[in-house]
Amino acid sequence: MTTTKTRAEAAEKTRARLIDAATELFAREGLGGPSLDAICKHAGFTRGAFYVHFSSRDDLIVAVVEKIMGGFIDAILMAGEAGADLATIVRTFAIAVKSGAFPFRGEVRPHQILEACARSPELHATYLELIEQARARLAITARRGQEAGTVRADLDADAVAQLLLALVLGTEIATELDVPHDAGAVAENVLRMLAPVSPPVSP
Amino acid sequence: MTTTKTRAEAAEKTRARLIDAATELFAREGLGGPSLDAICKHAGFTRGAFYVHFSSRDDLIVAVVEKIMGGFIDAILMAGEAGADLATIVRTFAIAVKSGAFPFRGEVRPHQILEACARSPELHATYLELIEQARARLAITARRGQEAGTVRADLDADAVAQLLLALVLGTEIATELDVPHDAGAVAENVLRMLAPVSPPVSP
Repeated sequence: MTTTKTRAEAAEKTRARLIDAATELFAREGLGGPSLDAICKHAGFTRGAFYVHFSSRDDLIVAVVEKIMGGFIDAILMAGEAGADLATIVRTFAIAVKSGAFPFRGEVRPHQILEACARSPELHATYLELIEQARARLAITARRGQEAGTVRADLDADAVAQLLLALVLGTEIATELDVPHDAGAVAENVLRMLAPVSPPVSP
Repeated sequence: MTTTKTRAEAAEKTRARLIDAATELFAREGLGGPSLDAICKHAGFTRGAFYVHFSSRDDLIVAVVEKIMGGFIDAILMAGEAGADLATIVRTFAIAVKSGAFPFRGEVRPHQILEACARSPELHATYLELIEQARARLAITARRGQEAGTVRADLDADAVAQLLLALVLGTEIATELDVPHDAGAVAENVLRMLAPVSPPVSP
């Protein structure tokens, strides 16, 4: 039992080290940059060890994207989930954009992920699944906000989630293209647009 | 004089035929698909004629992107400019998405344009210029809408333009990734969010 557990732990560690090494080299050289040999060497393993954990380079890319994107989505959405607070999510995202934490730092550019998705059905499915989960969580948060009276009740919560998701994807592309984009001003506008209409004031 | 004019016209025609042939083959085979020879042959010209009009394959791609994107932007924004009507622009765009007219039909996928932009500073500059013009026109339309009382006056017109632009870029990516996206519902939500707040009604 102990040996099995230790072996499983060692295997998990090897896998994690390969993913970390790949993340580092992808960020430095782009998704198409480093060879598998370079990644294995950087992690301190042989190519034999690699194929115990991954079936292909694309399989490794899936794991890296899952880790980076999943971690980012969790960090942003968690900010809102405790208090069902869409405003906190939108502001946290704007800060991530302004600080350069979003999109990916380094040489991994959004179009490389899209290109890899076009090539690998497995990566495409993983990426879609991550996006779909984010969309579902945003819709839940929007609905809770409507119940709590912090989000306009006359909006469709699912459409709000789709709108925010398209905004995130668009911000990614705007950043890659160096389109001037004031994430803070856009976020404040979005929040004003999502806020409940002020109660009528008698003159 | 007449000969010069005729020559200029013939040159313009040759250039236009090369652009049309490239647009057709790119749509069929993707941006990286057809060889220069195939494009020239499809247009009925030699490679010598090609280099009279374009300095490189990237130069031709610039002309194709300028034509397709410029035409699309004009078609969408013109819908609103006569009446300074942001609602018509947003709805016209949603219809273009639902009908499949946006993004590009065929095999030219958004990531290929981004990849070409990353490779060619000239294409990047052209694309940025098109986006910047669209943003400026959207901001003018938003401001006119505010003056006409059809757009909320408490929003920042520039941020509204940036928001709509990010939405367009995001919709492009969502479509490429097959993310479920109800363009009509999102458009109606956006219009509700942009509309002036109803005047207070006394109970």
